[in-house]
Amino acid sequence: MAKQNTKTMGITVKKEDDMPEWYSQVVLKAELADYAPIKGCMVLRPHGYDIWQSIMDFFNAKIKKRGVKNAYFPMFIPEKFFEKEKEHAEGFNPEVAWVENKDDSSERFAIRPTSETIIDDFYSRWIRSWRDLPLKINQWCNICRWEVQDCKLFLRSREFLWQEGHCVYETEEECEEDTLNYLEDYRAVSEDLLAVPVILGLKTEKEKFAGAKKTFAIEAMMPDGKALQLGTSHNLGQGFAKAFGITYIGRDEKKHLPWQNSWGISWRMIGSMVMTHGDDKGLIIAPNAAPNKVVIVPIIFEKSKKEVMKKAKEIEKQLSEFEAFLDDREGYNPGWKFNEWELKGIPVRIEIGPKDVESDQVIMVRRDTLKKEIVKTKDLKKKVDATLKDMQKSLFAKAKTRLKESMVTVKDYKDFKEKIKQKKLVKVNFCAEVECEELIKSETEGATSRIILLDEKIKKGAKCIKCNKLAKHVVYFAKSY
Amino acid sequence: MAKQNTKTMGITVKKEDDMPEWYSQVVLKAELADYAPIKGCMVLRPHGYDIWQSIMDFFNAKIKKRGVKNAYFPMFIPEKFFEKEKEHAEGFNPEVAWVENKDDSSERFAIRPTSETIIDDFYSRWIRSWRDLPLKINQWCNICRWEVQDCKLFLRSREFLWQEGHCVYETEEECEEDTLNYLEDYRAVSEDLLAVPVILGLKTEKEKFAGAKKTFAIEAMMPDGKALQLGTSHNLGQGFAKAFGITYIGRDEKKHLPWQNSWGISWRMIGSMVMTHGDDKGLIIAPNAAPNKVVIVPIIFEKSKKEVMKKAKEIEKQLSEFEAFLDDREGYNPGWKFNEWELKGIPVRIEIGPKDVESDQVIMVRRDTLKKEIVKTKDLKKKVDATLKDMQKSLFAKAKTRLKESMVTVKDYKDFKEKIKQKKLVKVNFCAEVECEELIKSETEGATSRIILLDEKIKKGAKCIKCNKLAKHVVYFAKSY
Repeated sequence: MAKQNTKTMGITVKKEDDMPEWYSQVVLKAELADYAPIKGCMVLRPHGYDIWQSIMDFFNAKIKKRGVKNAYFPMFIPEKFFEKEKEHAEGFNPEVAWVENKDDSSERFAIRPTSETIIDDFYSRWIRSWRDLPLKINQWCNICRWEVQDCKLFLRSREFLWQEGHCVYETEEECEEDTLNYLEDYRAVSEDLLAVPVILGLKTEKEKFAGAKKTFAIEAMMPDGKALQLGTSHNLGQGFAKAFGITYIGRDEKKHLPWQNSWGISWRMIGSMVMTHGDDKGLIIAPNAAPNKVVIVPIIFEKSKKEVMKKAKEIEKQLSEFEAFLDDREGYNPGWKFNEWELKGIPVRIEIGPKDVESDQVIMVRRDTLKKEIVKTKDLKKKVDATLKDMQKSLFAKAKTRLKESMVTVKDYKDFKEKIKQKKLVKVNFCAEVECEELIKSETEGATSRIILLDEKIKKGAKCIKCNKLAKHVVYFAKSY
Repeated sequence: MAKQNTKTMGITVKKEDDMPEWYSQVVLKAELADYAPIKGCMVLRPHGYDIWQSIMDFFNAKIKKRGVKNAYFPMFIPEKFFEKEKEHAEGFNPEVAWVENKDDSSERFAIRPTSETIIDDFYSRWIRSWRDLPLKINQWCNICRWEVQDCKLFLRSREFLWQEGHCVYETEEECEEDTLNYLEDYRAVSEDLLAVPVILGLKTEKEKFAGAKKTFAIEAMMPDGKALQLGTSHNLGQGFAKAFGITYIGRDEKKHLPWQNSWGISWRMIGSMVMTHGDDKGLIIAPNAAPNKVVIVPIIFEKSKKEVMKKAKEIEKQLSEFEAFLDDREGYNPGWKFNEWELKGIPVRIEIGPKDVESDQVIMVRRDTLKKEIVKTKDLKKKVDATLKDMQKSLFAKAKTRLKESMVTVKDYKDFKEKIKQKKLVKVNFCAEVECEELIKSETEGATSRIILLDEKIKKGAKCIKCNKLAKHVVYFAKSY
């Protein structure tokens, strides 16, 4: 950090003036990530990895309760596996990177763009009986989608980190129910951990996963009025089981095809949090997702140094459950440190100087409101706890209000185009035909169907906003990342 | 599991009769891992991943105390980066897999065989001042060494999981000291977590890491008399810093080259534990490395089912700190379950039937000795805790005795060859010349120098066991994996 002074270190554009530039400055200057010297790639730096670790810990606890176990599958996938499920192969072919094979065979190997095929090959050997079901396995791994040319930090990159769950069930009902369970877990990661509100629903035929029967998703609206898909949970039906020869002997002692789902979230989650909460001073980490929730900055003068440092260390210990850390670096003044930790989004800052030691108090600053408060040392732990909880709630409420305000209905197609231009999440009756959706996309400079809300049923006889034929679903359209 | 009955499920060879076959049967049948349908690759199954997670958690806690932070770097490395450090490039070239580049450029990308080069490129931009040092970053990731043709489960595979730490320091002293700190952390993973005793030391010129100044290692002896290298910590000196242009402005305001180290362990650690402790019934997980340390098997008769299950659930709760789990699967009899959990190496088994409920007791079976004991329910938690601790100690002590017995000294080169044939770890005075080491290797069908113990100094004037020239080090030779 020492290479930059306070002035050049800060964010140089306002969020509302130029959000893309603001976003990449925040990600880079808060040291969450950096561009790689390889086209389309990025590095996840320690400050970003800490948030990723929070996401992994939170989600692992959720899926453990559902009986899911973690594992690790090979990253190389033989070309012949891809060809087994036709829709899947067509969907992913442009994205696949291939390894130069130095062996004595003509076989080609893909670097996984997703792992349904390689995992299903294993499952076809591991599953024999209904006693082996449900089989629920998840992996945390890197993924390669080679078609990405320009890296959009956290949002789109040639290589990224994600988790992918792959489950097999005896019955269709169990499969569908559990597919929705993981969607609920994704909602929890986004809303309860990162304080990013989402809507849950189904994807249209055009937007669903290649090879899936149904794709469910959680979708967020960013402050610039673009939708961001944050997680998907696919009911795969029996297509992959058929293609890969996964069968089991049922309770009736006959052979059956099982039902499958798969589901994934990636480090894109981090990007959504940055965009949703950040301000002109930089990043704001939702308290629940911050491993270090409190930073302590001592105000040092030579003659009172010993007392202040002693007190600061006591406070560090007192606040250990929040993984508070003491910034005792020399060669930086307190103002520089305040700016750095604001830029890096630590939820609560504690300032302590000689006068505070005398009065047995500290100054507490909350990152979202930047409100300063004098707190007596004896009350500090309770006060910090309450502040973190309130901040989590308040960040979520603010974002939720924005999401609600972005959701609008329209009278006709002209009004629809107008609202799309205004960057709204627009609710319409829609025929759900792929051709119609493509027309809408081209006539609106990129609006796509984002979600079909699960609890919103179409009225009988309702007509499609675009083609005026019978509508099939109530669908939300928006421009998106 | 239901596809196999108890008889075919067990290990069909004795460990002392055919260890390689015994080993792969244990790994496969205990469902730690499986061969992949891709040459040289394997899958880490949930039961194996649990142990890997224990290793990650244990090691993360160790390095956190040393100020190391986790991150994630790109898996693709531009070819030109490899060429920057010549020794490194030559050492790794045969192992590298290349990606077919579909972009409009002739640039080739390697899949990381190790990440010094890509990380040092980032470091050259991130490091400016002495204030940025030490910089200590670790990553958990997959690695590709394409030259592997036949997968030896956990021991050698084309793709594997590991961690790699990469640190940068102001001074040579600090660098060397910390290089040894990580070696100590590796000793702790192996000995304190997995109960696998190791010797610590330096590698010879021939065996050191390509591009390193010094390579330190921990080395274990497997029960079949083969050495297994389990972790390496490299003092890289300033070679990579020079090659990648990493410099910093020092406290003297002048430009300096920093010092670096790198260090890694892989899932091979799991293989060493399997070989060291397993027996003819299967796997034995060292208690400290077992996430689920206790399995509870209820003995069910229809009329007492309710009481037994109630008590079994109470015990599961009582033993929750050991992550005890209740095997309440239907369709398997208790004997089948006993065999399965013995095969899978769960440290302690609790059996509970109707008579036990009446007497408020259980039967406790310890995996290593298979000793059965009746324990009163009220004493159970204390008893389980003591048993796990004793088992951990006892597994380590047994293996330590074997390691010590394998370490021998010899009179002359003829005796040396004899002891190598007897699969010992043979201590000799050695000139440490690459040519001499190659001669020894060819004349002994594969013995290599394993380690130079740190605290064993060569006697003045001692001669090399092979060439009779002046010896440089006391070196341990053995055949190895």
